[in-house]
Amino acid sequence: MQPKTPSESVAVLTDLVLPGETNPLNNLFGGELLARMDRAASIAARRHSRRIVVTASVNHVAFNRAIPLGSVVTIEAKVSRSFKSSMEIYIDVWIEDRESGIKNKANEAIYTFVAVDETGRPVEIPGIVPETELEKQRYDAALRRKQLSLVLAGKMNPHDATELKALFI
Amino acid sequence: MQPKTPSESVAVLTDLVLPGETNPLNNLFGGELLARMDRAASIAARRHSRRIVVTASVNHVAFNRAIPLGSVVTIEAKVSRSFKSSMEIYIDVWIEDRESGIKNKANEAIYTFVAVDETGRPVEIPGIVPETELEKQRYDAALRRKQLSLVLAGKMNPHDATELKALFI
Amino acid sequence: MQPKTPSESVAVLTDLVLPGETNPLNNLFGGELLARMDRAASIAARRHSRRIVVTASVNHVAFNRAIPLGSVVTIEAKVSRSFKSSMEIYIDVWIEDRESGIKNKANEAIYTFVAVDETGRPVEIPGIVPETELEKQRYDAALRRKQLSLVLAGKMNPHDATELKALFI
Amino acid sequence: MQPKTPSESVAVLTDLVLPGETNPLNNLFGGELLARMDRAASIAARRHSRRIVVTASVNHVAFNRAIPLGSVVTIEAKVSRSFKSSMEIYIDVWIEDRESGIKNKANEAIYTFVAVDETGRPVEIPGIVPETELEKQRYDAALRRKQLSLVLAGKMNPHDATELKALFI
Amino acid sequence: MQPKTPSESVAVLTDLVLPGETNPLNNLFGGELLARMDRAASIAARRHSRRIVVTASVNHVAFNRAIPLGSVVTIEAKVSRSFKSSMEIYIDVWIEDRESGIKNKANEAIYTFVAVDETGRPVEIPGIVPETELEKQRYDAALRRKQLSLVLAGKMNPHDATELKALFI
Amino acid sequence: MQPKTPSESVAVLTDLVLPGETNPLNNLFGGELLARMDRAASIAARRHSRRIVVTASVNHVAFNRAIPLGSVVTIEAKVSRSFKSSMEIYIDVWIEDRESGIKNKANEAIYTFVAVDETGRPVEIPGIVPETELEKQRYDAALRRKQLSLVLAGKMNPHDATELKALFI
Repeated sequence: MQPKTPSESVAVLTDLVLPGETNPLNNLFGGELLARMDRAASIAARRHSRRIVVTASVNHVAFNRAIPLGSVVTIEAKVSRSFKSSMEIYIDVWIEDRESGIKNKANEAIYTFVAVDETGRPVEIPGIVPETELEKQRYDAALRRKQLSLVLAGKMNPHDATELKALFI
Repeated sequence: MQPKTPSESVAVLTDLVLPGETNPLNNLFGGELLARMDRAASIAARRHSRRIVVTASVNHVAFNRAIPLGSVVTIEAKVSRSFKSSMEIYIDVWIEDRESGIKNKANEAIYTFVAVDETGRPVEIPGIVPETELEKQRYDAALRRKQLSLVLAGKMNPHDATELKALFI
Repeated sequence: MQPKTPSESVAVLTDLVLPGETNPLNNLFGGELLARMDRAASIAARRHSRRIVVTASVNHVAFNRAIPLGSVVTIEAKVSRSFKSSMEIYIDVWIEDRESGIKNKANEAIYTFVAVDETGRPVEIPGIVPETELEKQRYDAALRRKQLSLVLAGKMNPHDATELKALFI
Repeated sequence: MQPKTPSESVAVLTDLVLPGETNPLNNLFGGELLARMDRAASIAARRHSRRIVVTASVNHVAFNRAIPLGSVVTIEAKVSRSFKSSMEIYIDVWIEDRESGIKNKANEAIYTFVAVDETGRPVEIPGIVPETELEKQRYDAALRRKQLSLVLAGKMNPHDATELKALFI
Repeated sequence: MQPKTPSESVAVLTDLVLPGETNPLNNLFGGELLARMDRAASIAARRHSRRIVVTASVNHVAFNRAIPLGSVVTIEAKVSRSFKSSMEIYIDVWIEDRESGIKNKANEAIYTFVAVDETGRPVEIPGIVPETELEKQRYDAALRRKQLSLVLAGKMNPHDATELKALFI
Repeated sequence: MQPKTPSESVAVLTDLVLPGETNPLNNLFGGELLARMDRAASIAARRHSRRIVVTASVNHVAFNRAIPLGSVVTIEAKVSRSFKSSMEIYIDVWIEDRESGIKNKANEAIYTFVAVDETGRPVEIPGIVPETELEKQRYDAALRRKQLSLVLAGKMNPHDATELKALFI
């Protein structure tokens, strides 16, 4: 299988924040943002694998900045690393100022998807070759995150998590 | 005011078709597509004008191809021509084949937005300079469409609709 | 097939505007109104044809008046003209003042639907006989609109669009 | 205050059943029907009183017939009796057969609304004069229902519920 | 079939009130509350019967207290009495004060569900043995309510409604 | 401030999976589950702190088991550890078999919330005293998770993350 680049699978979901999607503080409701990121991430995973994909886990989401009613929100999802049949998707969320047009980072999130066949069995997917500096950093960190999640799930001995262990000793 | 190019305001809304958004034939419900196009178009209008924008009219929407449940739908909205305070937005809708990754055109639509100030009064907006061949064609056709809508509304004498008249004589 | 009158297929959808259906200016969100009109129009088309119907195009929607949160909105959809297997639906939207009970026109829209069989193939539908003065005007104008849309789509030579041409010369 | 007739306040909400509004048996979800009836009934109550209205109680809803996906559903809400500041609304729900156009009764419901001023205090509303045979029957039965609800709430001595008592002795 | 207790089937649905679920007065929209109670009640009915259940009727809902935007709402649904194949579900709705944590009763409702097999035919369900004082009161009142609804539907002679008749003579 | 126990703030959200909440494989859509967990978790956080709370991060969600259309889903959210003004919320998701009534674990998730005052500034919250064995385990692990997230965010030197470091050496 031919490896791909992250830019081949990038998915962009630009949308508004309407009143029916807010919380009582008049900001985008956290659950709605989680749902939109899930939609964007699943499209990136599908574009990379050209397979049916299912959400395996949400690894991290940081809500750094509230997104007010009426905002234009851009969600950009990209495959940061692919493993045998799973993919880590890195999601950046931006809001833009109406008058200046300047975009500010509001959130970051990391989701994992698995590619499956029609019977739900995991299938092999293409590798990925990061191109930009940021893509390379995220590609490297993805391995540490994978080891970490295996360690926390008790599926890997911490002493075998070489990438991760290097952080602490 | 500095004129802009259509590509400066393009808005891309890539999203899935989930069961809650379908009609009884298991295709994307027409009303839901109209709503998504309205959201994308209003973002393009806002990016061009950097103002509050309101939908003035939907001029044309052709539903050429049904969009089945589970599709990835890409809506691309671009300002095709700007007038004193109104903008015509041209919207292209694509669906992509999961296995081949090939995108096919599903729909086209034309919406008009008006830029307003906080009191709802129309305000002047930047002009637009089309760049690609397609942008130029749409820019020219936009004037005919505007004349047509003025004629049909009884706000312009057909004999003054020079661009349009040329089509028929 | 027995022709019918417009009043035999009229569909009335009276409903409220709740906060979850508004835009950030606290008026009914344009996309929601487009969706409601699509629902009402498809009922009128189905009543006229007694067939499965699908939206073929939105020909025109004018947003003349914002519809504030809390309004009672009446959408009235009627077949204005039927062709071989397609129907033009004319939609009037009214809002009513709570204290006086007076109804004001807020919008007008024109949608086209096609009647199909279970395999999606277009089927023949009954003709229509307009009764009121307004129904007759809309019936006549529908032919001009159909010619116009064929001309704009490059499917009819402008010189054959006799009804339309008469407007300009 | 001038009394009104039920037909002056009738509200008709004709709408489709889309997949996002069904239960797992592919029929209209009961909760969605309750919500639609609440919307229609509140419009009838508002038209009768020309006041702000709030739902006071749902007195009875019978789900006699499931409403399948894709149905056209007509909800007709009418004031059946008005008291000092409250109104009983009688709601009839119909589904229509696509091929024959015949309408069948699917449900009946009775809701009570109260008219209030801006501070939420109940206000006096017009009386009602039933016209048709059915309107007269419902008007008479409304008093028995009101006595019944007062008795069940412990706010009326059963022996004073003359209308109701007559049923049992 | 082994009888059960009400506490074996209790269903608790604690949730927020977000802006997309309100009415124009910024309180929980009545139709949304009716839908939530239907969901909670159907879970209680399913837990008691372990069968497919369908809403047969809404017998009574009293909206005593508006539920403001941002509230935490607790819906508790319990089987109050089971008959041959139908169950009465009693629903209590509470809102809690954020600062004191105190819960106040906002609404009460009574729904009836029927247990059916895969073909929609009613099936026999377990009896119920009330335990608490409140459960016993509601169990007794359920029979009067059932007689009442049979009388009102013309399916029982008032003179045979012994429980009910006792109220009036 | 008096410390509390996890059981004082537990929030239970039992609900159905309806067709409008599924993905194209007819299972509960991942984004919808993320939203429901956010709602339940925020209620637990609010009950513990009696303050306004905002989602700070989603630390981990594992989608172990698909939740089919028609399921009864129970989401149980509990404060697992409180820090100065932030709380870790541990969420367990169960689905129950209709016929046997047996509940199976479908998912686990960990969210972090921050308590704030009306101006959005973090405020101090009560401590927590775990009671059950499971609560104690989660309380201990919460500190490792907090250190981990500080290390990954570059806000703590790995060598100071004593709890975490112990895992690897």
